Amino acid sequence: MLAEIICIGDEILIGQVINTNATLLSKELSKIGIEVLQVTSISDNIEKIKNSLKSAMEKSDLVVITGGLGPTNDDKTKIALCEFFNDKLITNPDVLEHIIKIFKDYVKKPINELNKNQALLPSKAKILINDYGTASGMWFRKNKKNVISLPGVPFEMKHLMEKKVIPKLKKHSKFHIVNKTLLTYGLGESHIAKRIESWEKELPKNINFAYLPNLGRVRLRLSSKGINEKQIHAKIDKYIAKLLPLIKDIFVGYEEDAPVEKQIQNLFKKNNFTLAIAESCTGGEIASRLTKIPGSSDYFLGSITAYNSSVKKEILGVDEQLIKTHSVVSKEVSKEMALKVREKFSSTYGVSTTGTAGPSLGDSKEKIGTVYITISKEDKIITEKFNFGNHRERIISKTVNKVFEMLIKIIH
Amino acid sequence: MLAEIICIGDEILIGQVINTNATLLSKELSKIGIEVLQVTSISDNIEKIKNSLKSAMEKSDLVVITGGLGPTNDDKTKIALCEFFNDKLITNPDVLEHIIKIFKDYVKKPINELNKNQALLPSKAKILINDYGTASGMWFRKNKKNVISLPGVPFEMKHLMEKKVIPKLKKHSKFHIVNKTLLTYGLGESHIAKRIESWEKELPKNINFAYLPNLGRVRLRLSSKGINEKQIHAKIDKYIAKLLPLIKDIFVGYEEDAPVEKQIQNLFKKNNFTLAIAESCTGGEIASRLTKIPGSSDYFLGSITAYNSSVKKEILGVDEQLIKTHSVVSKEVSKEMALKVREKFSSTYGVSTTGTAGPSLGDSKEKIGTVYITISKEDKIITEKFNFGNHRERIISKTVNKVFEMLIKIIH
Repeated sequence: MLAEIICIGDEILIGQVINTNATLLSKELSKIGIEVLQVTSISDNIEKIKNSLKSAMEKSDLVVITGGLGPTNDDKTKIALCEFFNDKLITNPDVLEHIIKIFKDYVKKPINELNKNQALLPSKAKILINDYGTASGMWFRKNKKNVISLPGVPFEMKHLMEKKVIPKLKKHSKFHIVNKTLLTYGLGESHIAKRIESWEKELPKNINFAYLPNLGRVRLRLSSKGINEKQIHAKIDKYIAKLLPLIKDIFVGYEEDAPVEKQIQNLFKKNNFTLAIAESCTGGEIASRLTKIPGSSDYFLGSITAYNSSVKKEILGVDEQLIKTHSVVSKEVSKEMALKVREKFSSTYGVSTTGTAGPSLGDSKEKIGTVYITISKEDKIITEKFNFGNHRERIISKTVNKVFEMLIKIIH
Repeated sequence: MLAEIICIGDEILIGQVINTNATLLSKELSKIGIEVLQVTSISDNIEKIKNSLKSAMEKSDLVVITGGLGPTNDDKTKIALCEFFNDKLITNPDVLEHIIKIFKDYVKKPINELNKNQALLPSKAKILINDYGTASGMWFRKNKKNVISLPGVPFEMKHLMEKKVIPKLKKHSKFHIVNKTLLTYGLGESHIAKRIESWEKELPKNINFAYLPNLGRVRLRLSSKGINEKQIHAKIDKYIAKLLPLIKDIFVGYEEDAPVEKQIQNLFKKNNFTLAIAESCTGGEIASRLTKIPGSSDYFLGSITAYNSSVKKEILGVDEQLIKTHSVVSKEVSKEMALKVREKFSSTYGVSTTGTAGPSLGDSKEKIGTVYITISKEDKIITEKFNFGNHRERIISKTVNKVFEMLIKIIH
């Protein structure tokens, strides 16, 4: 089955929001073997919605639309769909009841007529009730093609997609798409490409191979599709088995198994290790990334963001003289931060980051982009120095990625 | 001038990456008065690239393409552009010299033939040298239309766009688009809509008005375009002046002035205040968001992520008996965390979050979604209790948003 995604909203076209809906929809459809041909973002404009829908239906069997279903005047999707399918809006009593219940139980504010109008829905569509909001999903069928319209609020869209759309689509999708992505750290894409050149040449036409470089790591993705899922897996695994010996030194895991934060969690739990972090230049980002994953409280004890030099001294207990002698961005202070945080939290591992993210130098004598990372355990301590360029957000992200890489390599 | 953006990459269509390039491009073009009609994402396929480009050039004066310019075999954009413009690849000596220099000074690995091939570029395009990478930008002109192809690595694309594309486009763009977005907290979109109904009805046709709801806040955007920038601003400001008295209780600032994290920084600096945070359920996210903004070290002293109950006790110094009596997710513990963190860091303000983000209950007795936030200063302390639903990431994000809202309201 071929699909196209249409995202509606002026906020996308002026760059006010990042279109995460497109990412989620693409991922969910791919997972069940539906190939997404195109993602199109357009404004809240009736003519544009109708034109894009027409063009999408010419190329695809399925069109998923998000956005433009709110209660306010700037939302036009329902009107456009009625005009396109020659339909009219009628009150759906189940939806009306649901909206009234939401206001009573959850919003706890009086319901108004705009809210009630959310129950006015196209008569020809199958209605998908939105458990978390007042904008319903709509499912049209015409000439054997499916058009599904979902709300633009990411959480509500995700819920409808996962619970009410995917289970139905899955039954009709005969194809399977298999993606397997190898995470590598420490070598650029062109150098990997040269190293695996003859392996890549041997790949059959029906396996797609892609390099995805990003901030100090390169992901290598193999994709293939077909009717027999097992066979596709076996085919991809055969080529991965030949690839692995060539990239042994840079390979850390498979992205589909789990995001890297989850892989760290698994490693810590498997070994009964605990972790504490002293963050300076990363400002809390490592802790935040690790705790986004459920279950992190089983190994992650906590962290100290010692952003200010005096905090490194007073909260972490780093020796003042050490900071004075070596400066706050130094191997010595990095080591001491990792040792102290491990001691304070009584954790198996202590990690520290200290560096100069810029744009100003702060208390540091090192040039912008210099970062020290230390990983300490009772019986070993490793400190590495890096230069991550001169762009603040990039320096922070590269540091976080490097900490994850070092943790995985050390514990593996 | 009308524009279309084409993003190329299989990784977008299988949902492996979030398309932040589209957001940045849309924002940059809008800022200089170029209206983005459509954003289209397609795969690394020569025919699809040519078809999308043809269709975009029929509707728009400017097409900006990103992606598919890497040194490896999966990247096809250069080939597609040569076929489309009936062109051929020739070695650009300046680019070759630049690539050799990058490898010598920065990559510090031997250069290989794939890297050198990055200097093979279409003969008809004006070349935009990429200071941060080996994939150059290309600028074609045909029948008075502009087609600009940029690399897909976000940082490199951003640099080329900001330094080499926007300054040139700006000279040719006669129009101005003005967006002004009011940040509000605490009232749903339908209730705001009812409250400002008669104001909204009075808006002239040439001012667009939109509601953007997201996790506890609603942004209200007014947009208009024209030739005289001053006049458009004056027109929008006139209607904002009438709107403000209606939303006084929920309005916190303008998004275009600065992101909310920057507004907090400004408020703290203006008042010579400092801040320290004790994060439990937010796991470092507040610290991480605040420190992404340059200059944060001037007021943000640091934070403790007290993820584990024992850490709340041993690192923060929260009384063990208090935790036993009231449980870790309670008003009492929240208060104590904020007081203790302020004391430890000697900051003007102390903020704490404690809650149950789920999916499991952890050490808490409260149901999932319960969050306590405390903001403490020497002479006052405010604790509020919330229920933010039952979705982990949403609970964390809503808590962070709420902390920002409370800080702005309290300090304003």
